[in-house]
Formats: sequence, C-alpha cells, structure tokens
Amino acid sequence: MTPAPAVSLVEVGPRDGLQNEKRPVPTGEKIAFIEALSLAGLRRIEAAAFVSAKAVPQLADGEAVLLGIRREPGVVYGALVPNEQGFARAVQAEADEIAVFTAASETFSRRNVNASIEETFARFAPVVSAAKARDMKVRGYVSTVVYCPFEGRIDPRAAAAVARRLLDLGCYEVSLGETIGRATPGEIRSLAAAMISEGLIDRVAGHFHDTYGMGAANVLAAYEEGVRTFDASAGGLGGCPFAPGATGNVATEDLVYLFEGVGVLTGVDLDRVIDAAAALEGSLGRPMPSRVHQARRIARAASAGAGGPCTTN
Amino acid sequence: MTPAPAVSLVEVGPRDGLQNEKRPVPTGEKIAFIEALSLAGLRRIEAAAFVSAKAVPQLADGEAVLLGIRREPGVVYGALVPNEQGFARAVQAEADEIAVFTAASETFSRRNVNASIEETFARFAPVVSAAKARDMKVRGYVSTVVYCPFEGRIDPRAAAAVARRLLDLGCYEVSLGETIGRATPGEIRSLAAAMISEGLIDRVAGHFHDTYGMGAANVLAAYEEGVRTFDASAGGLGGCPFAPGATGNVATEDLVYLFEGVGVLTGVDLDRVIDAAAALEGSLGRPMPSRVHQARRIARAASAGAGGPCTTN
Repeated sequence: MTPAPAVSLVEVGPRDGLQNEKRPVPTGEKIAFIEALSLAGLRRIEAAAFVSAKAVPQLADGEAVLLGIRREPGVVYGALVPNEQGFARAVQAEADEIAVFTAASETFSRRNVNASIEETFARFAPVVSAAKARDMKVRGYVSTVVYCPFEGRIDPRAAAAVARRLLDLGCYEVSLGETIGRATPGEIRSLAAAMISEGLIDRVAGHFHDTYGMGAANVLAAYEEGVRTFDASAGGLGGCPFAPGATGNVATEDLVYLFEGVGVLTGVDLDRVIDAAAALEGSLGRPMPSRVHQARRIARAASAGAGGPCTTN
Repeated sequence: MTPAPAVSLVEVGPRDGLQNEKRPVPTGEKIAFIEALSLAGLRRIEAAAFVSAKAVPQLADGEAVLLGIRREPGVVYGALVPNEQGFARAVQAEADEIAVFTAASETFSRRNVNASIEETFARFAPVVSAAKARDMKVRGYVSTVVYCPFEGRIDPRAAAAVARRLLDLGCYEVSLGETIGRATPGEIRSLAAAMISEGLIDRVAGHFHDTYGMGAANVLAAYEEGVRTFDASAGGLGGCPFAPGATGNVATEDLVYLFEGVGVLTGVDLDRVIDAAAALEGSLGRPMPSRVHQARRIARAASAGAGGPCTTN
C-alpha cells in the first residue's frame, strides 16, 4: 500500500480557472482537460458552475461537461452552485458534490453577487438542505479572507466567523479564498491562527492566488499552521479580465512541485498535469502562467537536445 | 532616526539581470537604471562586470556605466571581476567593491568558466590580494549551491566548504547562488543548516532564482534560518538565452513586497524600483517577469480608473 497523500489538492482549473478566460474553450476540450486531470491523480475536481450563462458564458456548458466526462472511480466531481436553480442543474448533471460561496467582506459580497453576506446565506441555506437530503456533500467558499479590494484588510476573526457559519450549516469543508493574491505569509499565519482558535483548522482549505508571486510561500505557511487541503488550478489558469498581466489561482503544478520538494505527498503526477494544461493553450491563445509549468516544459525540451545551462550565479 | 533595515538587498539587475538579455541596453539607459535604483533606496548595487566582451557583449560598456553614474552617498557600486585584467578595469572605473565567483559543483565550474574550482581560486587569489591592498572590499559568489544542471543535487557541506574558503581568502560576504531556481524551501533550510554548523550564517547572502516560482518561499525560509542579505534583480531581470519563458533572478520588487508584508524593513521604495525597471521595457522588448511588478502596475492603472475586481473565490 502506498501511504495516503499528506495534502489533498482540489483542482479548480476547469471552473475557477476557465471562468475568467476571454476565449471560450470548446466543451470537448474541457472534457478532455478534466479527464486528463483525473488521470494525473487529482481526486477532487471542480468541473463546472451552474451560474448565469449571461454572467459567465465561459461555463454555460456545465451539464454537457459533467455528463460528458468519463468518470474515474474515486474521483469527486464538484460544481459551484449559487441558488436552487443552479442546484437543480447540478443534480441533473450528476455532480458528486456542490459548492456554495460567500465572502468575508460585506462590500465584496454586495459588489460580486449583489447580496449581503446575510443574504447569501439565505440564498444557499435551502440548497444545502436539499443537497443533504440527497446525501450530496457541500463545500463552502469564503472569498476575501485577507484582503478585500474595497475594504482593504479583513479581520481574520470575521473570516473565521463566516467559515464557522458555513460549517454549522452543513458544509464539510470551507475553502478560504485569498481572492486578490495580495497576502504575504504572516497574514496567512494570522488567518490560520484565527481558524485554530475557533477549532476549524482541520476543516478549512487554502485557496490562494499568485498575483503577487506569494502563492508558494503562502501555501507553505498555511501548511505549517496545519492546513492540509489546497485549491489549485492547472497551469495557473485564472486571472482577471481587467488585468491582462495578472496571474490567477495558485498553479497545481507549483503546489505539486513545492510539496514534492519538501517531502509531502500529493499523489499527483506533475508531468501529467502539465500536459493536461498545455493542451488548452491553443484555445486560450496564451501560455500557461505557472512558473513550474513553463520551467518544466523548457527543461524537457532541453533534455531533448535544445538547450543548456546559462547562468553564472 | 529611522531604524536600520532588517534585511539588506543587493541589487544585481544591472549586472546579473542584463547579462542574459538578448537585446542590448544603451549605456545611457543603464546609467539611468542604476541611478533610479539608488534613489529607490538600494544601498548595494552590482553595476558592471569586467568579463570578456566577446563572451558577454551586453556588459562590454562597464567602464562607461560606472564612470557615468551620478553616485549617491552611502551607496556601494560593485563590479564582477573574473581575473587580474578585469580587476584593473574595475579600478579604472572606480568600482567601490568587486566580486569574484566560483561554484560548488566541479562540473558546473568547468562548463561555465572552463576551470576547476581549484583553478578559479588560483585565478582570483591575486585579485583578492590586490583589492585588499587598495582597501577594496571583495564579495564572493558560489553558484550551484543546491542543484547543478549536470551533477544534480549538491551536498550542502560542499557549498559550505567553498563559502568558507572564500571567506578565509578575504571575502567579507559570500553570495550563495541557487543557480537554476529549482530548490524548494526544505533544501534551502538544509543549506542554511550547513552554513550555521560552519559558523558562516552571518556572512552569507541568498542569491535565488524564481524559475520554478519558489523564489519568495525560499527567501523566507532562508530568512527564518538567519540569512539577512539577499541578492535580487529589479523587475526579475535575468533569465536564460536558451529558455524563452524562464524567469531569472528573484525580483527586487517581490522581495520588498514579501519583507514589507511580514514586517521586515528593507529601506527600499517598491514603486520606485518598479519605475526603474519599467523604463527598460522598451529596450528589452519584453515585460518584466516579476509578479509584483506586473500586479502593482495593473493595480496602479486600475486605481487610475481602468479596472475593478474580478474573481469570486
């Protein structure tokens, strides 16, 4: 028997990654992407979102994606669901689990989904009940857990209070979104401390962005504080329609590389993730932002005879 | 009085950064770059290399650069020097200090400078003596301290032995180059442990590359182990002529951002470093690879009215 992976990676590229891409990815490519990710060893894949097709046209084909993939045994295919209509679609599409989302910042919640934090709970409370009645697991997302683009620094206790409420409602896990990728490791440790003090550290996941290049450092800080689940996006997909140069989610490749480097098992095959993400480049019309993705492909090409070393220090 | 910076950043962009760029940067732009960096608060700037103009045409104008800059009081302007001819040029150009370089990997040393480690010491021993006779300080570089592209993993004790030898020879500090940017924080901690066990931790600097996106995490690990000096390159300049997508040195912007975030003073003004590096984009014909550089410029543009938030998790 191989030992259990010491961290669990939740692949969010097909959903959180693709939702912000300018160019649409054909349904068939999304299906191939998800299948390749499952064969790379990822056991939890957020495959779709059942949100307004008008608001997020990139993900309008959620049913076709979820019903089209060849499912690997043991892999959990999730879907983001904002309300009861979305939940009905997720059930129809045979999602294994759903995710609901809210924020730690009142202003962000209002601007992002036009609802107060209180109102988001009112919206998804019936969804959580319905899911539980069907034995579907529910994951919770809290965005802006460290910084809000409108309010600035968020009190870690506010983030912990929202996380607790999601868990109390019936979520099995809460993903803590450092939405704008601005946090540094000390702030991540403060966030973790608030979770520890509320007794939540075993049920939270880190959902970080690499916008300021702090992704790996923040994940490691969270890991050192006891977080054992991390969301990541193959290739570092994600990013922001308003921000051409900005990077998106922490890349799955970067986390696999980091954790392998420090001796923590992920159960994920780095090269297969790279190939899964690389296959989307044509449709997306841009290279993958992940540093590991880029460097490893260059190293592969070099070992095939195309290059050599080049730096002196 | 302001408190002394808690870490010291050594700006290597004008030398290590520009030496690998394909397109030449005009001398006047290099001078403006160095002047802007000094006004951003960087107190140690490696401004030139007096190496073969045939091998590194990018830096052939070292004399003109060093003699052309308006020097800020308190700023140390250094030059890399491989041998006695180079030293004579550095003296002529009024460099404040020099740096000599060798490697922890025998194979890398042979491939990089066509000399064994022993032979590199024989080459620069007279340079160090001559510098000391003139009261010029000498910095030592050791490359491939964790990974060698030919030999693979390098024993931290081998790196420590070379560092000790440089210090014994008269270097005041040794910069430990993780040349290919492949290390993860556990390996950096092992390297630091070897330095601690040899009593060298106070006299070494970290010189890391962001090739695999581990730059910030590695710097933080080294800092936590006691390293207080880090080399960095404005904009993340550097990279590799064989590797179009590869990034180079850890960016000065990323380290200023990281250290500010964790409450460690650098004395460096982030926005001024960004402006210094941004001014080179035209000549280099590419955007700066630093994540902080990119994100901060986008944030500036957004606060000037061009954008808004965009992610949900």
